[in-house]
Order: sequence, then structure tokens, then C-alpha cells
Amino acid sequence: MMNFAVILGNLGNTCDRFLSTGYKDQPPKAVMFKQAASIEGVSGIELVGSWDITTQNVAEVKQQLQDNGLKLASIIPDHFSQKRWGLGAFTSRDPEIRQQAIAETKAMMDAAVELGGDLVNLWPGQDGYDYPFQGNFDEAWCWIVEGVRECANYRKDVRLALEYKPKEPRTHSYMARAADTLLMALDTGCPNVGVTIDTSHSFVGGENVAEAAALLLRYKKLFHMHFNDNYRAWDDDMIVGSVHLVEYVELLYWLSKLKYDGWYSMDQYPYREDGRAAINESVRFVDGVWKKMNAFGLQRFGALLEKGEATSVSATMREFMGLA
Amino acid sequence: MMNFAVILGNLGNTCDRFLSTGYKDQPPKAVMFKQAASIEGVSGIELVGSWDITTQNVAEVKQQLQDNGLKLASIIPDHFSQKRWGLGAFTSRDPEIRQQAIAETKAMMDAAVELGGDLVNLWPGQDGYDYPFQGNFDEAWCWIVEGVRECANYRKDVRLALEYKPKEPRTHSYMARAADTLLMALDTGCPNVGVTIDTSHSFVGGENVAEAAALLLRYKKLFHMHFNDNYRAWDDDMIVGSVHLVEYVELLYWLSKLKYDGWYSMDQYPYREDGRAAINESVRFVDGVWKKMNAFGLQRFGALLEKGEATSVSATMREFMGLA
Amino acid sequence: MMNFAVILGNLGNTCDRFLSTGYKDQPPKAVMFKQAASIEGVSGIELVGSWDITTQNVAEVKQQLQDNGLKLASIIPDHFSQKRWGLGAFTSRDPEIRQQAIAETKAMMDAAVELGGDLVNLWPGQDGYDYPFQGNFDEAWCWIVEGVRECANYRKDVRLALEYKPKEPRTHSYMARAADTLLMALDTGCPNVGVTIDTSHSFVGGENVAEAAALLLRYKKLFHMHFNDNYRAWDDDMIVGSVHLVEYVELLYWLSKLKYDGWYSMDQYPYREDGRAAINESVRFVDGVWKKMNAFGLQRFGALLEKGEATSVSATMREFMGLA
Amino acid sequence: MMNFAVILGNLGNTCDRFLSTGYKDQPPKAVMFKQAASIEGVSGIELVGSWDITTQNVAEVKQQLQDNGLKLASIIPDHFSQKRWGLGAFTSRDPEIRQQAIAETKAMMDAAVELGGDLVNLWPGQDGYDYPFQGNFDEAWCWIVEGVRECANYRKDVRLALEYKPKEPRTHSYMARAADTLLMALDTGCPNVGVTIDTSHSFVGGENVAEAAALLLRYKKLFHMHFNDNYRAWDDDMIVGSVHLVEYVELLYWLSKLKYDGWYSMDQYPYREDGRAAINESVRFVDGVWKKMNAFGLQRFGALLEKGEATSVSATMREFMGLA
Repeated sequence: MMNFAVILGNLGNTCDRFLSTGYKDQPPKAVMFKQAASIEGVSGIELVGSWDITTQNVAEVKQQLQDNGLKLASIIPDHFSQKRWGLGAFTSRDPEIRQQAIAETKAMMDAAVELGGDLVNLWPGQDGYDYPFQGNFDEAWCWIVEGVRECANYRKDVRLALEYKPKEPRTHSYMARAADTLLMALDTGCPNVGVTIDTSHSFVGGENVAEAAALLLRYKKLFHMHFNDNYRAWDDDMIVGSVHLVEYVELLYWLSKLKYDGWYSMDQYPYREDGRAAINESVRFVDGVWKKMNAFGLQRFGALLEKGEATSVSATMREFMGLA
Repeated sequence: MMNFAVILGNLGNTCDRFLSTGYKDQPPKAVMFKQAASIEGVSGIELVGSWDITTQNVAEVKQQLQDNGLKLASIIPDHFSQKRWGLGAFTSRDPEIRQQAIAETKAMMDAAVELGGDLVNLWPGQDGYDYPFQGNFDEAWCWIVEGVRECANYRKDVRLALEYKPKEPRTHSYMARAADTLLMALDTGCPNVGVTIDTSHSFVGGENVAEAAALLLRYKKLFHMHFNDNYRAWDDDMIVGSVHLVEYVELLYWLSKLKYDGWYSMDQYPYREDGRAAINESVRFVDGVWKKMNAFGLQRFGALLEKGEATSVSATMREFMGLA
Repeated sequence: MMNFAVILGNLGNTCDRFLSTGYKDQPPKAVMFKQAASIEGVSGIELVGSWDITTQNVAEVKQQLQDNGLKLASIIPDHFSQKRWGLGAFTSRDPEIRQQAIAETKAMMDAAVELGGDLVNLWPGQDGYDYPFQGNFDEAWCWIVEGVRECANYRKDVRLALEYKPKEPRTHSYMARAADTLLMALDTGCPNVGVTIDTSHSFVGGENVAEAAALLLRYKKLFHMHFNDNYRAWDDDMIVGSVHLVEYVELLYWLSKLKYDGWYSMDQYPYREDGRAAINESVRFVDGVWKKMNAFGLQRFGALLEKGEATSVSATMREFMGLA
Repeated sequence: MMNFAVILGNLGNTCDRFLSTGYKDQPPKAVMFKQAASIEGVSGIELVGSWDITTQNVAEVKQQLQDNGLKLASIIPDHFSQKRWGLGAFTSRDPEIRQQAIAETKAMMDAAVELGGDLVNLWPGQDGYDYPFQGNFDEAWCWIVEGVRECANYRKDVRLALEYKPKEPRTHSYMARAADTLLMALDTGCPNVGVTIDTSHSFVGGENVAEAAALLLRYKKLFHMHFNDNYRAWDDDMIVGSVHLVEYVELLYWLSKLKYDGWYSMDQYPYREDGRAAINESVRFVDGVWKKMNAFGLQRFGALLEKGEATSVSATMREFMGLA
């Protein structure tokens, strides 16, 4: 019922600023594809530009997908992992860089189609600012809208999903939360531009993620979902369900109620954990919660919403959790 | 150049949940009007429904405004200080309450015009939710949009400014941040519906307030501004400039650049301070920063934006602050 | 096995700064005592000075406790709900007020003994500061330590538990978190001075509450526990378990492991809920989690700690939550 | 009057998890030493183990210090940048790793003395936990106290300063805030163990940094200071004064009042800025604020503390900032 996907790099080595070579060893790509395919329920893969996919290796990647019976969930073009993007990609003050950001997106749109996909997830992580008086808000907004529009018009058979995140690597991102990113998407005027929710980004943004999803679904703009968990202050990219429970229950309820039909894609940084085991835990959690919700009766959650009465919510959730 | 206003209640007694009778004594309304008028630069007053203004005392209030040479900046209808609003005003599950919320708004729109004003500031503080599965997001959004639209269409000579706040008194407000509230305003389709920024609400929401202002001004929807300060985690309603400096400099720059022409209204809760002195400090701070920025040269801040280079920002701000 | 208590006022009306008369009606005290006694598992009551208990009504209260078969869990002297404490109780710059804070504490220590108790919970909520350069940190620390020491030496058959809270009603409290409050307790040199953890205060403080409990238990200074829940940014005083789950599991494990033997006292502000129902939900949650943990096998949580391996934690917690 | 230092690596390339090779190019060490020495007022250098200093290159480094007329401010032993520390250094569950953490510290204590220093700054960044039930709090506390004690007793002519940080690279650090780290330092019983405040770490911890400094100075345990700035939610390691002003004024006041006599060391990650320029800005800011405070009259800040009255604070700060 849910289509699970994995960002391929989750299965590899991950680093931070103190240990730039990472906490683990990097397995070969072929091993990572196999590991992804071996997780029960996973049928899709997300690929990151530069790291996993370039215009040079499309055929190779296609073979890997086929060999492992995996579909392409999306490509995330690289707008963040090279020096040239350091001061912004779509919002670089250098017009040449802005053109490169657009060109990179178009190339990855082509690659996505070549690989059988129809979704490109844009996470322009460097598009933001660090300091006061560094962000030229008005200009940046226009550059994003124009750049994304140009890409969206390039080929209408590919949907572009804008992934918001309040901060990191910049202290402030231009696509910060659901509502502002929805405004950008609407501003392009392109039906093939929508929004991605990453659950941890939403937590960091102080959103109730279920409410963010409901907002985007009302506007028919929730194109994609990334799942992970954190302690709310930062994008810890932990195993789903490690910290939060009721928020995921509420989220899954609303995704179902408002008929989200996209991927449930895992996006983690298992710095010190076995990658496959960590991703598997996340899939098991989401799948397990959803199955338990259905066994419990989705209408019971709906009944809570009718009344909005807190002690009923509490009693129902206790029963759901099996607390006598 | 700036039109300063004061929310009248700031000059009175203020309470919290532990000391519900307040930390001070309540002065007579006439004294509060006089105090407001005595603050250099203040020419406007904001009135709160029930507390300051009802359909019964409009003539009386009109006299006070005239006697003190004050204009009505806005009325904030009471959608928060009575038991009937406890489970929501515009989003109450009881249709009768929703009608009352609308009726109260219309009555205050009439009162505003009667008092020579054209702005009503809507802060439906009880419209939100406290618990998981308590907020019926989709329904609530529609009720807000419909309710506000009905009010806006009631008389088009009054502008309605929706004041967002991430939380309190509910753990989550439906009008939480600039972008979602702008979406609501746009959704009404009414040109006389816009948004109010309260600087502390914006800080609590994790926004860069200058960026929020730029967003609303781009859409021609920044109708009103409330000024106060806090320590970012909560709506402390402190004296402006007590904690933040550079954020206000950046905000005032963008208000000027994108031609905000509304009120600069002070909204504080000086629980333990002399009310008049506390408000005066806030006006002096905003006025002082703005004058200093002009003396320094607004174009110098504009030059920073051109480059977006952090050490130049730092050097310029040091010079602005008079740090050799 | 767990001794549950309730703060009496939780069953009454509760207000906030926007609706100072509260969202409900105030029931008679006798009804509140009966309601507390009617909650399965509740055997203790906490009383708040001024609100519930004064030197004048001790006999009356004693009768209520007896009539309802309830023990006194603690008294919380009133250091927060009167104008005189507005600028601090133990740390007021007025020596007369500081003496009153001490006198009030001693009177409540006497009352506690008279009522069969041996615990006084000190929450000097006004002892803190709101603005920069308002807190005289060094002096305040000394005043707290000296004041508490004088109280502790007044009668050694009563234990004083210092309840920390990062903020509210001041923007900063002097007793802010577990470690600083423990330092204060140690600084008194009195064995009958310890610390209270309120779970929501700990969440607001950015603590992992289980770690805070372990710290205090290591020093034999965890004297008391208040339970409630929140959304981490503020002391929302919600039904326990409404938001958090795994944090409570970890907390209960450590309370057991390090042999906490005090009360499990509910401390909520059910603004818009039926008080008895809301408290009952909290007791059911804590009791239910603890019973489920025992049925599951406490040693299984201990085994997780031995290894500290994240995917095992995740798999175990999924099993605990009944997620296949 | 203030002794300024710089962490050498601030002048080099810095990376994050998305761009692990960094945003700039790495200059030769000799250039970095020269740049540090060229910043007006800088007389000390902090060195990081592995990155800047090993047992192999002590002589070389000594030469660099001499050639540039710089003193050693401290060494920060490497307990964070190698795979072996990934699951903890002092608190690794592997006793061999714990021994290595101690050995590394001793080696760097020797190196510090060899280089003319007497201070080692311990930042065991990997000593913490990421997930629930991953931290064995009790055991970890003991291991830290025992490990640090062994190092402190190794040679008493070197002071060990424990640098706290609430999180990163783990979601929770064991040395999280001033008060808990002070408790650890006291628990060692060693007079040569104290605490380092990093201003950004303190902001992230929700502390008022001036209050944290006052606490440590009261216990004679503030051994060292790192300066930088951030937006409070994360260790952004920005130019000092970019975001905060009044907090630094209050901090410098208390450092002076309680007679801090250690280094004022700059600790930044100027990812996208010229390193020397960014550090220079920070020194200029701290130096500039301190000079302006003295010109203004330190006793005026003291007078504010006597009264603790908010509007006086505001008026005084406006005057200090030159806002008419």
C-alpha cells in the first residue's frame, strides 16, 4: 500500500565537520543497491547528483536499478556538494552559477526520465544566507521562482518537488517551511512544481508535520515525502520513530485522509550505525505504525477529530499503544 | 516619519497564570490615554475589544481620542478573553460561536470607522489546538477563510490585518507564521485582507523578521506592525531592543526599502515595570535606531546587500554601533 | 508500587494572561478532594500555599485528607501568586520580602508536619530576572542558598525539594535546570535539601529527563517528581504522554534502576479539559507504561544500555510498542 | 588588557557534511601562523591535536610560535576527529579506547608544557549519545570523572579545562552545560580541573552566558573562554557580535567583576569567509565593546545591577549604543 524508497547514500559512509572522512567505510555502489533491494517493502531508490548519478553514468545506474528490481523514486540534483554552489545555486549573485544550477536540474530531469522516473527533488541547500544583511530576500525569491519555472517548463513530464529545510548548511534557507515553499511553488504558475516534506526538516521548523502535510495536500502540492527523525532542534537524520510516535500517527492519518499517493522515502544519516539495519528499522516503523492504525480502525482517529477533545485523544492513544 | 501607536492596555495592569490579578494596579482609562499621548512621537492608539472598546462605549472612547489628540490605529476585536472563545472563535466546532466571532468583528469594524479608523487587527488567539488529533486542519482553514472573507466583504472601507503567532494561548495557532497567514489572506480573495507582523511572534516562529516583512511586502499584504522584544522562545512582550539589535536594523531597512507605510505600534506586557516608561523606551529605541540608520546612510546597508559578504557586514555594523 | 499524587489545584479552574478568570468554573475544594481520591491509584495530595493551604485552615484541610483517605505528598509554599513576590521572594532586593519568603516556608513546613507530611516543594517562580543587567547572579545565588539553609535548619524532619524551571513567570529563573539546582542544594550543606524534577520543566530546559534524574539520584538528591507533558518549548502542563513516549520509558527505567522512592505526582493545567479526567489520563499513562515495561522485561532495557546500539534500541522499542 | 588568542584551524579550510572537502582551499600552516600573528591584539594560539599538533611535530610548532611571537594558549587534544573515537573517547564502552583517550590527553599535556603553555582544553565531542537507551549515564559520568582525574594527576602544572556543548556531533553530549560540567570538575577533586565556556555552546544550551560565567567564577573554575556567535539553535561558529550584542556586554561586565584572568580565544568556522578577516572582525568586536564599556563607565552597569529595574537598563543601553 505504501511505496517505500531509500536515498541510496544512506547506505554508505556519512561524515560530519569534525570527521570529514566519515565514521564508517564506503561500500561499493553495487552493494548499496543490493542492500536497498533487500529491505522488505522497498521498491524505489532516490539518487543524489554527483554522488550517485551524473550525465556520464546513467546507463550504469539503469542497469543497477534493473538488476535489483528497483524503480527510480527521484533524483536530487547536486546543488550543495561542490565549491561552486557555496554562495548559492539558484540564488548565487553570479549569473553564471545560476545558469549552472538550472542546467544541472535539466540534466537530471533528463536522467530521471531515462531511468523511468518522473520526479526530481530539488534541495538547494546552499540557497540561503548566514548573516544579517547577507540575504537579498526579494531578489533571491525572484531568482528561485524564475529558475524553477525555467526548469519546470523545460519538460512537463517531470515533476519538481521543492524540499524545504529551515537551516543547514546555511543558518537560514530560503525554502524554509511548508507555507513559504508552497508560495514559491504557486508563484511559478507551473502545475508540475510542488513541495517535498522531510519530517525532520518540518520538526526543526517548529511545524506540526501533519498540519504541514494537510496544507500542501489541500493545494494539491505535496509531491514527495522524506522520512527520518530527530530531537527537533536539528536535522539529526535518525531512525524514524526513535523519538516521535504520535506525530507520525497523526501524519499518516492525514496523508491517508487527504490521499497522498507519492513515495515514502527514507532519508537518514546513520553516522555510526549499520546503514541497511538503520534504514530497515525506519521502514519497519512506518509500515508497522500504519498497519497497526488500520487494525485499530482509522475511523477511530477520525472520530477524535470530530470532537477535538483532549482526554478522548489521550485515552484512545493509550489504547493504541497497548497501555492498559 | 514613522507613525507610532500604542496598544492601550500596555499602560494598564497585566497578569499571568500565577498572579491572575496582576503585578500592578489598574489605572483609570483616562489616565492611560493621557499617558499614551504624553509619549513623544505617539499619535495612534490600538484598542482591544471588551477590555477597551465595546459597542456601548464608542462615543466615550471617541471623546478620549479627541481630548488627547490621538488617532485610532486599529481595533483588535476580542476573540480570546471570554470563556465562549475557549475552544476557538472562527474555528469553534459550534457554528453559533463562529457566527459570534464574525459578528464581533463586524461590530468592531463599524466602531473603527466611527472612531475615524480603517484598520481592524484580527488576533484569533484561541483558534488553534493543544493536543494531537485535536486540530481539524482542513476544516479550520476553511472556516477561517470563510469567516474572514465574510467580514472583509461586510465593508470594504476597513482593512483586516491577520496577526499570526505560533502559539499561546493554544500550543499551536492556525495563523502561525507569515507565509501560512499570507496564504490564508490570499485565499480569501479580498484586497482588504492582509497580515500583521508582531516582532516577538516572528522571533518565536523562528523567522528572520526582516525576511517575513519582505515576503509580505512583496505581496502588498503587510498591513500592520506590532513591536516588542523577547528571548525567542516565548512571547515575552518586552521593551523593544532589550535583546535584539541587528534584527531590528535589518527589519527597519527592509520596511523602508519595500515602502511599508503603516503604523509602528508598540505591543508589550510590562508586567513589573511602569507602563508608560516601558512603552516610551520602546518608542525611543525604534525611533533612535531609525534616526541613526539615516544619519549613517541607508545606502550603506544597501551596499551590504549587493555583496552579501559577511565580514563587510560585521565591519559596517561595528561602525554603526560605534565600536572603534 | 508507584505512589501517585495530584496537585489539588489541577482539579480546579486554571487561567492564563488572556482569560484571567479562567476557562472553567471553580468547583468547591471538597469536590476537588473527592475527585482526587476517586482516581485509581492516587493516594497523595500536593497543596499550594495561599490557594489551598494557609496557617488558618490546617485543621480543615486535615479533615479533608482524612475524609478522603489521602496522604499529604507535599506543600508548595506560595512564593509566586502575590504582588509582594513580583520582584523575587528569596532573591528580592528588599530584605523584608526575603524574610517573608523564609517565614512562609517555615510556616508551611510546620503545616506539612501537622498534616502528616515530611516534604515541602519549593518553587520560587519569581526568583529570576527578565532583562539583561537585571539579575545580580552572585548575590541571588547567595540569598537562595542562605534562605533555603535557614529553612532547612529550622526543622530537619522536613525535606525541602527545590523545583527547577528554566523560565516563566520570569524570562530566566535562578533554579533553571537539574545541575545548577543540585549545586545550590549541595551548597546549603543540608542533607534535607534536594531537588524536584518536573518533566515539562526538564523538557523546556533541553534536558533528557532520564539523564537529569540519573544525575540527581547519583547524588541522592532526587526528592520529588512532577509529571506532565508539553511540546518542549514551553511549560504547557499537558496530559502525560500526549506528546512524549520513549522519554517516559527511559525515565521510568532510570528511576527504577537508581531506586527513586518518592512520589509520582501529577502537575497539570487542564485549561479546557475536565480536570479529573485529565489527571486520570496522566495516572493511567504512567501506570500503564510502567506495567507494560515490567511485563516486557526491565532487563531488556538494561541490555540495550549495555550495548548502546541504536538499531537494537529501535527494534526493541518497536516490539515494546507492538509494531510488528 | 584582554589576552586574545585564535584557534589555528579557524584560519584554514572548514567543511560540513554536505561538502566534506570544504568551501575554501587549505593554506599552509606557516601562512596560518603568520595570519594569526598579524591580527592586532592576538598573542596566543590554540592548537588542535592531530590537525595542528602531534607528538611528532612539537619542535616544528615551537619554532612557528617563536617565529611569530605567539604564545601557546592551549592545546585541544583530538578526541573527535578519528574513527576510533566515534562511539566515545573517555566514555567508550571499549576500555582500550578509554585508555587511548587518557594517553592522548597526557601526551598533549606534555606537549603543552614543552610549548610553554599550561592549559589543555578538553572537548570530548564524541562523549555523549544519539538515541534513547544509548547513554549509560551513570557509567559515563564515572568514566569521565575517573579519566579526567587520572590526567589531572599526571601533571599538576597543567590545568585541564572541560569544554561543554549541548550537542554535536552527538545529539546529546555528556558535558552539556556549565553547571553539569562544573559538577564533573568538582567531582574529580582536582584543583587543576576547570571549565571552558564557548559562547555559542552556551547560547545553544539556553543559558544566559553571563550567568554561566558568574557561576563558574564563583567556584573559581572558569579556566578558559571561546568566543563566537550563532543564532542560538546550533553552533554556527559565526563572527562574534554578528547576532548578539547585549549578551556580550553583560558577559564582559561579569568577567571583569568576578576577575576572569584567562584567554579570550576566538573559535569560529568561517566556512565561506576569508579566515583572517573573519577572526579579525571578532577580535575587533570584543575589543571594541570592552573599550566602549570602559569609556562609558563600568560603574554604570554596576548601578543597573543594584536596582535591577528594566526601563533603566533599557535607557542605559540605548545611551551605550548611541541611540539618542
